[in-house]
Amino acid sequence: MSDRKLNIVVWNEGVHEANNDPVTMAEMYPEGMHGAIASGLRSYYPDADITTATLADSGHGLSEEVLARTDVLLWWGHIAHGEVSEDVVDRVQRHVLGGMGLVVLHSGHFAKVFTRLLGTTCSLKWRNDGERELVWTVKPSHPIAAGVESPIVIPKQEMYGELFDIPEPDDLIFISAFEGGEVFRSGVTFSRGKGRIFYFSPGDQEYPVYHQPQIQKVIANGVGWVAQPEQFREAPGVSNPAREYFEKH
Amino acid sequence: MSDRKLNIVVWNEGVHEANNDPVTMAEMYPEGMHGAIASGLRSYYPDADITTATLADSGHGLSEEVLARTDVLLWWGHIAHGEVSEDVVDRVQRHVLGGMGLVVLHSGHFAKVFTRLLGTTCSLKWRNDGERELVWTVKPSHPIAAGVESPIVIPKQEMYGELFDIPEPDDLIFISAFEGGEVFRSGVTFSRGKGRIFYFSPGDQEYPVYHQPQIQKVIANGVGWVAQPEQFREAPGVSNPAREYFEKH
Amino acid sequence: MSDRKLNIVVWNEGVHEANNDPVTMAEMYPEGMHGAIASGLRSYYPDADITTATLADSGHGLSEEVLARTDVLLWWGHIAHGEVSEDVVDRVQRHVLGGMGLVVLHSGHFAKVFTRLLGTTCSLKWRNDGERELVWTVKPSHPIAAGVESPIVIPKQEMYGELFDIPEPDDLIFISAFEGGEVFRSGVTFSRGKGRIFYFSPGDQEYPVYHQPQIQKVIANGVGWVAQPEQFREAPGVSNPAREYFEKH
Amino acid sequence: MSDRKLNIVVWNEGVHEANNDPVTMAEMYPEGMHGAIASGLRSYYPDADITTATLADSGHGLSEEVLARTDVLLWWGHIAHGEVSEDVVDRVQRHVLGGMGLVVLHSGHFAKVFTRLLGTTCSLKWRNDGERELVWTVKPSHPIAAGVESPIVIPKQEMYGELFDIPEPDDLIFISAFEGGEVFRSGVTFSRGKGRIFYFSPGDQEYPVYHQPQIQKVIANGVGWVAQPEQFREAPGVSNPAREYFEKH
Repeated sequence: MSDRKLNIVVWNEGVHEANNDPVTMAEMYPEGMHGAIASGLRSYYPDADITTATLADSGHGLSEEVLARTDVLLWWGHIAHGEVSEDVVDRVQRHVLGGMGLVVLHSGHFAKVFTRLLGTTCSLKWRNDGERELVWTVKPSHPIAAGVESPIVIPKQEMYGELFDIPEPDDLIFISAFEGGEVFRSGVTFSRGKGRIFYFSPGDQEYPVYHQPQIQKVIANGVGWVAQPEQFREAPGVSNPAREYFEKH
Repeated sequence: MSDRKLNIVVWNEGVHEANNDPVTMAEMYPEGMHGAIASGLRSYYPDADITTATLADSGHGLSEEVLARTDVLLWWGHIAHGEVSEDVVDRVQRHVLGGMGLVVLHSGHFAKVFTRLLGTTCSLKWRNDGERELVWTVKPSHPIAAGVESPIVIPKQEMYGELFDIPEPDDLIFISAFEGGEVFRSGVTFSRGKGRIFYFSPGDQEYPVYHQPQIQKVIANGVGWVAQPEQFREAPGVSNPAREYFEKH
Repeated sequence: MSDRKLNIVVWNEGVHEANNDPVTMAEMYPEGMHGAIASGLRSYYPDADITTATLADSGHGLSEEVLARTDVLLWWGHIAHGEVSEDVVDRVQRHVLGGMGLVVLHSGHFAKVFTRLLGTTCSLKWRNDGERELVWTVKPSHPIAAGVESPIVIPKQEMYGELFDIPEPDDLIFISAFEGGEVFRSGVTFSRGKGRIFYFSPGDQEYPVYHQPQIQKVIANGVGWVAQPEQFREAPGVSNPAREYFEKH
Repeated sequence: MSDRKLNIVVWNEGVHEANNDPVTMAEMYPEGMHGAIASGLRSYYPDADITTATLADSGHGLSEEVLARTDVLLWWGHIAHGEVSEDVVDRVQRHVLGGMGLVVLHSGHFAKVFTRLLGTTCSLKWRNDGERELVWTVKPSHPIAAGVESPIVIPKQEMYGELFDIPEPDDLIFISAFEGGEVFRSGVTFSRGKGRIFYFSPGDQEYPVYHQPQIQKVIANGVGWVAQPEQFREAPGVSNPAREYFEKH
């Protein structure tokens, strides 16, 4: 493990916050959802450099320079996916393939950075009816499940249900059940290039989910798992080696 | 595909039936659960040779000769797992590794043939409280999901819940939700040696689940998927080939 | 299985053929590589409707109408990936997500339809030095491996070597070894949406690989495995169902 | 991460060493292969408690007490698999399911602890002809591949070739190629219960493979990856919870 600080960027489109829509937003997340997520991470990574960025920032706050020094990017988006520039999507994809960790949260399932890396529609069922969500661990040996209660009980939450149109994940860690009977693969990992991706569905602009300690713990575990601070940041490339190039002469 | 008939053996310990325990057994499954399962299969495989066998049969009805001609073995057991002889377990394991298909049903999760092939405890949560089970498809491209409604609604069923202690399956096809909020990976596949295994959890001695057309369809799809009538029946073995043995001289 | 004929389209950019480059092309593949591939398939699927299409055809021969009736699309491309229109890529992706089978061959690893569906660079090592390739089966229970010799010996072939930058495949069926010591995951499957994808690397414009019976067999097995003639052709979509919508009232 | 020391036990049957067979043994591995492996680990885990145990030790040196405090067990066996007591195999299996890490090396593929946990024959091809082995990384995002050269060049080694009869691994990290053209999935992981398993094939009693720094690095990475010092050591078990047991009242 490197001795340098971990660099974590929590990205949020920030539109719900800017519009105070829903009206509970300002009270529930006075520093925005990104603020709450970043705050949760600080208790787990006191030495890390944890910053936030939003759609409204120049270059969405995700310049080449920022990404180059970022170990883990968290992504929250919902109603403004279409406003994310293709240049930024290209950049994020390239950095993930080169080893940057990516944690995609909740409605980020439709984020361009996620569908681009997965190749599917990432569509799902949804219903905003304040249903109880139970988050069950199904892979207890995975680092992201370490120390996490099973189930995590989320008193009220938007329902996300199958079919969740994602490729077969590398690891299926959590499955959620909702009051109405739907189920959802709510915690899944993917590897793409040299990078690791964790998708975690709990969390929504209408419910105080990001304040729940167990949810914060899962997100912190996810950040720790996707981070590869020692990975040389370069996407895999094509090469045309000579025969026996690997033999030292 | 071979022109010969498919040979299917539905194995049931048959103890609930022998004891008429529960007392609804004789009425609900007059020909035993194996009889109902075999009957369901006959409508999908009218040309197949479909037989049944039970614990009480000589050699449990699973002699070397029987297994050698069996394409697919279905397994139902519950209260008599311990009475299954190790010799039969050895034989079944060897035939599965050699290419015989295996479909394990419901409480068969604790069958020796299953735990032997999987290497884990196969333990789970359970509660017999007549809860509604919803069986959701999560891999619609899999042959076992073909033409299957999502969800299948089972009005009353024993609850099976995570953590289901199985190795990571090759394919996760179905996830079930129960009224009480538990979830279960209810339809999963494994490959072992040259053989294919399908585990499907719906079905119990107290509920008429095996009479539901959609459940029969899943089991029939499972049988079709695990069957390899043209596979040469021999478990993988060790060999010590000469260099370049594969070149035709 | 449906009674209607299987519709198979073998797509080839057709540029090597148009330019007779390499100069052995006209003699080695007088009907183009697509012609040889289609011819190999006809012996396995005598009742299927097998056609070919190329980059030069109007809409690359892949109109909405054509794709809508295609069960399996095979894809060969190499030096003209960049000339494939984004509209066609969009269409192919949508049809694969809806259940159309896709078989990608050799240098098609860099085809836009492949990288779009996979999300990675799909880069690799290569060396065109006429090396012997051995194609080893590592998943003998998979339908694509049925009846296939292990290893298949390809006397002269372009080397493709790891790191092959693809997502973790659903199934790893074949691994190739080359004379120079490189290895390659040469036969892999992916599911995307409701569709199935098979990538198989053997085959090149300079070697008569598509005339080898065992290679033809693998491609035929691949076509059979990705085909879902009864799948309703529609990509997974988002929905907002009412509670208990699945209960029949 | 816990503050306590990591406890690592390197187990070797120790029969080649006891018999000085091959005759190069005493010179090549003066402290036994287990000694060399332990020595390699000490440079990576200077604070860990690293011990060795052999078949000849009482209870093979693997009492309940020893296993209970062991975070990672490494296993080397070859000609005495049959002499390992079933009691010890039961114990090791139970501890792995409860979260103890297991690293199985080379001819340990036929160890009872490995075949028991995997359920397959674990058979393979072999040829002891001093061939060059190249170990290629195919999952560069995995912690076990961190900082490892690709390929690792092993000048002389016993050939292990496919078909390697193992279940589909969770992660395929390394594929080896041998001079004779065979390939082998030489670095694979499995999860079983709450435990993690890493199998790594390089290493043999006739070659000084365990002295190669890159091989030592892979084994050290494997130890780090399978270790779960904070996991509560108990295999998953069956339970019969009341409805809503998870709600705090």
